[in-house]
Amino acid sequence: MAIKIGLLGFGTVASGIPFLLEENKDKIVAASKETLEIAKVLVKDEAEKDRLLSAGNHYNFVTNVDEILSDPEITIVVELMGRIEPAKTFITKALEAKKHVVSANKDLIAVHGSELIALAQKQGVAFYYEAAVAGGIPILRTLANSLTSDKVTRILGVLNGTSNFMMTKMVDEGWTYEDALKTAQELGYAESDPTNDVEGIDAAYKAVILSQFGFGMAIDFDAVSHKGISTITPDDVAVAQQLGYVIKLVGDIQETESGISAEVSPTFLPKDHPLASVNGVMNAVFVESIGIGESMYYGPGAGQKPTATSVVADIVRIARRLSDGNIGKSFNEYSRPAVLANPEDVKSDYYFSIITPDQQGQILRLAEIFNQENASFKQILQQKSNGKEAQVVIVTHRLSKTQLAAITEKLESDTDFKLLNSFKVLGK
Amino acid sequence: MAIKIGLLGFGTVASGIPFLLEENKDKIVAASKETLEIAKVLVKDEAEKDRLLSAGNHYNFVTNVDEILSDPEITIVVELMGRIEPAKTFITKALEAKKHVVSANKDLIAVHGSELIALAQKQGVAFYYEAAVAGGIPILRTLANSLTSDKVTRILGVLNGTSNFMMTKMVDEGWTYEDALKTAQELGYAESDPTNDVEGIDAAYKAVILSQFGFGMAIDFDAVSHKGISTITPDDVAVAQQLGYVIKLVGDIQETESGISAEVSPTFLPKDHPLASVNGVMNAVFVESIGIGESMYYGPGAGQKPTATSVVADIVRIARRLSDGNIGKSFNEYSRPAVLANPEDVKSDYYFSIITPDQQGQILRLAEIFNQENASFKQILQQKSNGKEAQVVIVTHRLSKTQLAAITEKLESDTDFKLLNSFKVLGK
Repeated sequence: MAIKIGLLGFGTVASGIPFLLEENKDKIVAASKETLEIAKVLVKDEAEKDRLLSAGNHYNFVTNVDEILSDPEITIVVELMGRIEPAKTFITKALEAKKHVVSANKDLIAVHGSELIALAQKQGVAFYYEAAVAGGIPILRTLANSLTSDKVTRILGVLNGTSNFMMTKMVDEGWTYEDALKTAQELGYAESDPTNDVEGIDAAYKAVILSQFGFGMAIDFDAVSHKGISTITPDDVAVAQQLGYVIKLVGDIQETESGISAEVSPTFLPKDHPLASVNGVMNAVFVESIGIGESMYYGPGAGQKPTATSVVADIVRIARRLSDGNIGKSFNEYSRPAVLANPEDVKSDYYFSIITPDQQGQILRLAEIFNQENASFKQILQQKSNGKEAQVVIVTHRLSKTQLAAITEKLESDTDFKLLNSFKVLGK
Repeated sequence: MAIKIGLLGFGTVASGIPFLLEENKDKIVAASKETLEIAKVLVKDEAEKDRLLSAGNHYNFVTNVDEILSDPEITIVVELMGRIEPAKTFITKALEAKKHVVSANKDLIAVHGSELIALAQKQGVAFYYEAAVAGGIPILRTLANSLTSDKVTRILGVLNGTSNFMMTKMVDEGWTYEDALKTAQELGYAESDPTNDVEGIDAAYKAVILSQFGFGMAIDFDAVSHKGISTITPDDVAVAQQLGYVIKLVGDIQETESGISAEVSPTFLPKDHPLASVNGVMNAVFVESIGIGESMYYGPGAGQKPTATSVVADIVRIARRLSDGNIGKSFNEYSRPAVLANPEDVKSDYYFSIITPDQQGQILRLAEIFNQENASFKQILQQKSNGKEAQVVIVTHRLSKTQLAAITEKLESDTDFKLLNSFKVLGK
């Protein structure tokens, strides 16, 4: 007997699922030990239903979620609506009705995941969401299954395809942020309100989920600081290249002596770092660990077929576990109390771009500010004086977040200096 | 009660296992739902035993494998001896004694895997070997678990760290093959007889195993053609760079209309291909599939800790399945009849480096030879004439293996031409 699936939503990703179920039927059925059937599909209203039917879609479209939730024949509910509500209510109801749930909803899982995971555990049902992080890259299952024997010390990720497309254009073609955004919008990579992508919010959602799988810590979304790419100038990009770096928006989760630190920020990557050649809309997750050392998982971060592939992998896993009789196992079992790092323990090299008056003694004054905070320079470049002002670029040796904050405050409160930008620099 | 493990062999990788079991104890025990204990370790003879004991190793070393195989308390046997015999006999006996087996022995699994896998299935025990392909990269479990929903069409892999280290030196530093080999031997990357690494044999073993996991086809080792790096000259490397390529030793498994093709050969990779920046002793497996599209899995291909991490991941998985009561599942369940591709269906661009007499009409004659086989040129470069001879480099449009063989034969049987090298070129 086929395992019956109820889809919530029939957008881009959802409509990629039938493609895989058909094109790869033999392998999927062999792995599932069951055939899989899309029994019902929830759509918004009668108008959408009519539109889909007249476009030639032959599914049993319904407009009331209860038709799926109260159908005893439907075993697996797949939520592909996105956003928080009504997805959260529907998933909660599905879990309460003891249905297994697959979701690709990173916003929801990052913010309300703990609650939903606990409910699934209580109900003894599966709640899987491989597609929520880095679309087609099977990173969550790899962390949960293959890296169980290893201790992860840091995860660095290019986690947002839209901003990575933009950064690639800004780096390779010298485009401005504004030009890159305009093209990303024209190509449909960026939404009309691009905030979530370009300000690092989307990547921060993914960092929350990676913290759980990589470090066993369920941190709050608010604990992930995020800084976006909108302030990056062609000048920053050019200086980075001159110094041997590529700028990308990078999610960075690491365990320090005092606890975990997670942030998303524009980061100078050495040109020979594996993440530096992850271009366009591709994503990659770079893992540092005590056993493997360095490994990287690379693939498309979004898109219909890649995301549908991860969703169907979750469905197949549920079907197989049902057949094997061990469905209760949580997607991620690694769990420790979440402890946030002391800012003094979170250290990195940093890049500062500063406008100074073009007068004698300014570099000395800058050096004094950094020296007062026990910060030392790795590289210093004075560029482009227009007679009145000069631009000074400084790359420091390792600074803690506390030192960074103190230096930033001093520079910003000093009327002589204008701090254009400061970015994290990954050590070479 | 602890799960007791018998180790066969206590070389480099084996001695990395206690490190992980200790350093990552909490996570491993939580994932296994059991503690893991190394109960007995098989060593060659009394002399090795004495040496290990006096070096401070506190294991129960034994010199007769039966002390492990007949010990009813030992549940898992881990084979890390390498080579075919006595590893094959010991694994066979262990499976017959209904012990679960973990191995990192690619030679053995590539050549006798089918037999051992069938025996494990018959006995209802686990036989896992994640470490056999690309050491620390969890590629086999990823193909078996996460890519079940996807249909793989091609796998390209940098699968041998030794030859990749050498190629990196030859490409980045312009070293000759001989210099690169000498350094690889001095650094302990290459053995005194480097044949397996440099002639593509080691990579071909891995291609056999990847064919099973990626395509469900158990092909014979003899079905994998292999060509090594020993004939690559600094001139080939320089021409490749001039044309925008990097040469690497690449395993290439693809499914064509008529069946599967697997080979290992020096390959021109476009500079922006993700595999082109896999350098030094690192490995990577690049997967093309109908769902995800392109994904890559990158990490160390060998080394004590990376390999031990994969071995311990297998042990943890067995311990957990024992606790969950579903130990029977095969490591790779994807299986189809193995059908080899018709050579006419296996197509690629090719590079030819040919010495011709420096006389009028030679290029025309070359063009005629290619034209007779319906081959067309993509690029042609005439270089370095010494007055008597000129070197001509040709990159063709797609040729089948049949066309390649016919052209090669004609060039080799023509006394005017000397075919220096021909290599596969990955399309840009």
